[in-house]
Amino acid sequence: MDLVDIRALFEEQEKYAGQKVTVGGWIRSIRDSKAIGFIVLNDGTYFKPLQIVYSDALSNFAEISKLNVGAAVIATGTIVATPGAKQPFEMQAETVEIEGQSTADYPLQKKRHTLEFLRTIPHLRARTNTFEAVFKVRSVAAYAIHSFFQERNFVYVHTPLITGSDCEGAGEMFQVTTMDLNNVPKTEDGAVDYSKDFFGKPVNLTVSGQLNVETYAFAFKNVYTFGPTFRAENSNTTRHAAEFWMIEPEMCFADLKDDCDTAEAMLKYVISYVLEHCPEEMAFFNEFIDKGLIDRLNNVVNNEFGRISYTEAIELLEKHNDKFDYKVSWGCDLQTEHERFLTEEIFKKPVFVTDYPKEIKAFYMKLNPDGKTVAAADCLVPGIGEIIGGSQREDDLAILEKRMDELGMKKDEYQFYLDLRKYGSVRHAGFGLGFERCVMYLTGMANIRDVESFPRTVGNCEL
Amino acid sequence: MDLVDIRALFEEQEKYAGQKVTVGGWIRSIRDSKAIGFIVLNDGTYFKPLQIVYSDALSNFAEISKLNVGAAVIATGTIVATPGAKQPFEMQAETVEIEGQSTADYPLQKKRHTLEFLRTIPHLRARTNTFEAVFKVRSVAAYAIHSFFQERNFVYVHTPLITGSDCEGAGEMFQVTTMDLNNVPKTEDGAVDYSKDFFGKPVNLTVSGQLNVETYAFAFKNVYTFGPTFRAENSNTTRHAAEFWMIEPEMCFADLKDDCDTAEAMLKYVISYVLEHCPEEMAFFNEFIDKGLIDRLNNVVNNEFGRISYTEAIELLEKHNDKFDYKVSWGCDLQTEHERFLTEEIFKKPVFVTDYPKEIKAFYMKLNPDGKTVAAADCLVPGIGEIIGGSQREDDLAILEKRMDELGMKKDEYQFYLDLRKYGSVRHAGFGLGFERCVMYLTGMANIRDVESFPRTVGNCEL
Repeated sequence: MDLVDIRALFEEQEKYAGQKVTVGGWIRSIRDSKAIGFIVLNDGTYFKPLQIVYSDALSNFAEISKLNVGAAVIATGTIVATPGAKQPFEMQAETVEIEGQSTADYPLQKKRHTLEFLRTIPHLRARTNTFEAVFKVRSVAAYAIHSFFQERNFVYVHTPLITGSDCEGAGEMFQVTTMDLNNVPKTEDGAVDYSKDFFGKPVNLTVSGQLNVETYAFAFKNVYTFGPTFRAENSNTTRHAAEFWMIEPEMCFADLKDDCDTAEAMLKYVISYVLEHCPEEMAFFNEFIDKGLIDRLNNVVNNEFGRISYTEAIELLEKHNDKFDYKVSWGCDLQTEHERFLTEEIFKKPVFVTDYPKEIKAFYMKLNPDGKTVAAADCLVPGIGEIIGGSQREDDLAILEKRMDELGMKKDEYQFYLDLRKYGSVRHAGFGLGFERCVMYLTGMANIRDVESFPRTVGNCEL
Repeated sequence: MDLVDIRALFEEQEKYAGQKVTVGGWIRSIRDSKAIGFIVLNDGTYFKPLQIVYSDALSNFAEISKLNVGAAVIATGTIVATPGAKQPFEMQAETVEIEGQSTADYPLQKKRHTLEFLRTIPHLRARTNTFEAVFKVRSVAAYAIHSFFQERNFVYVHTPLITGSDCEGAGEMFQVTTMDLNNVPKTEDGAVDYSKDFFGKPVNLTVSGQLNVETYAFAFKNVYTFGPTFRAENSNTTRHAAEFWMIEPEMCFADLKDDCDTAEAMLKYVISYVLEHCPEEMAFFNEFIDKGLIDRLNNVVNNEFGRISYTEAIELLEKHNDKFDYKVSWGCDLQTEHERFLTEEIFKKPVFVTDYPKEIKAFYMKLNPDGKTVAAADCLVPGIGEIIGGSQREDDLAILEKRMDELGMKKDEYQFYLDLRKYGSVRHAGFGLGFERCVMYLTGMANIRDVESFPRTVGNCEL
């Protein structure tokens, strides 16, 4: 259909001033007095709506005036500047055709709804200002991430979701099967007969694409994944979901410093891109969701991230142990309270904590010369805590095998991973960015359920 | 590390001529005579390799010469033009440091390997010319799709992978569970006790994001998904995988013609983008994989796609029934042999077939005024058959409910979908593009297993 986007009306105001155009969209509010009516129309292409003025010169004036919020109309009229009014221009309608009615039980009446209520109608909530802004920013941020890596010649790899290995034992996994759970096939000795399952063996949903994508880094030098990952963890928090998207770049001929440099450049790029491409949405978040958000993000873009070793971080945190539920000491894992104290109170900006004790990090991280720590780096940001976890990878076959033995891992299941260290091993590094946490950070939204279209959490899998 | 990409050496030849640079990469081949050696080095950033000349002036000349294919080195030297030679320039090395050895059992020796053999080493095959080209094109094509939609202000929506509904009954599904299959919890009456499962009910991996993304189209007008989908079908063909990526745009205020226009523009955009950004890779496919590929793709870009109704297509095909294993007649579904005959023999270019009998299409497709056909459109392309399936959607609540009743569907499970027709219904349309088939079409690769990083098919889930 030959409709003009409301975005175009706002972005090319001079072009459209005085012009007759046709728009289509959904009514956000409608009111009328005797001879004149006002429709606030949103067509989803722009955060701000278009005001449409219609009069009783229209044959269907009464019918229009009876429309409910949520109804869809197609309106034709002239765009007229309205100096001094709240909006810069409005449409004076010549025709308003009703495309689709909205019944009186429409759940999104013109009033404030709680986020909790809106979570019960995930199929409708993107029609509200808050969620229109969230999911627009999410889309633009996703594209920014692709642009960042593609401009730098990183190759996007779609690593598999269904996997026969459990990666790093990073978390509880979902099993995937085609067997009838009412009647699970069993072998003679009573075990599950996986020869009857689709893949002929037990398989799970991936918790990380990292081990797979490392194999592609050894072909392309610089690669990244951007896809869904899964955790079957029974944790009902505002930061955990069972299904979420993750970005995992992997770089060859790169060490931990290169890794942090790339992570910092990526975050700054994404923030800048979103601030530039979603100014209306970001102004909305700044005003209604998280006052100070834009200043904080600009501050991130314009300053170097802090960098501190785990050992130094522990020394700093120990002085404040009276403030923490969990007291810190060298060797302990950092809790969110510690991470947030470091980034919010001490650094007041994002900070990389590097070189953690090997015992609290994954097997594939590169052992430092001290023999005690590994070349890991977590990026902590105010308001969230850890947003990125990365490391240089162990590229020495003998050291990697020794570490796997120490941890009792089955090396034959990781032969493909060990092969990378046999055939042209190179120093390499990578990190993982949880995309939902990134969107929360960009928008100020406090609950992961409010940045996913249809969130999956323990006990919840609606639509 | 401060390395120069081999891509930069080729793309900025004037800048680097006579300059001293350092590169890092993997040896594709190596040979030496008494006092001089030649390394063909690939660093993954560019399809063509760099020739490095090293001499016995280097203290580790003997050590270098013993390196195997696949070893990683870091070389510093001067870039020197080589007029008349196969390659436009070479590096005259001052130092060649060995980053990582490659043992003699490296599976990718310098010889031709079959695609079947390479499928057995998915963690290494991207180091070959063929798969380096495939996965570079795949990455660039994915970005082209994002660019196409983002430039047109479509909102990228991450629809969920784990789902409680079965969409359109489009195919066999994988079940997702955290229950112990050795000991499935049962209720008192012997049924599976899903209250013990992670989500408290049976859930599956999605076969399509369409129904979910339609809800977002009603908020943003134009949206798209680009994510993994799953089919648990026991079909061992060259075109089917259990896990694959799909692009599903959905547009409001759009009819079937708009749908086809967008699909055609998208395919042309992606082809043009890949031809422009991957000229070396495409020349390789054209020479070694599929002679005539580039001409065929240019032909697609420069011509309008054909458009024909199903009824007309059947009339054309019936004249050739002697050529088909399955004879066609009105009402039958088109098989790949018919689709390919239409696009390859009759049209000799891509063609949309529209307005199929409602019985062979999904419940949500818009009923045409004839009461017999629906506003569906499949896009058929030479060499593949169907690459895109789309339709205008039924936006009339009463007609949709009637159709669901006819098919015995449980309407209460689709209340969210029916809500879209209650609250501001608008004409809308969308389509699905199987991304792997798109990559096959772009590269001429004939087997879906050769365009996925780690393909999942019945009985196969390696790494």
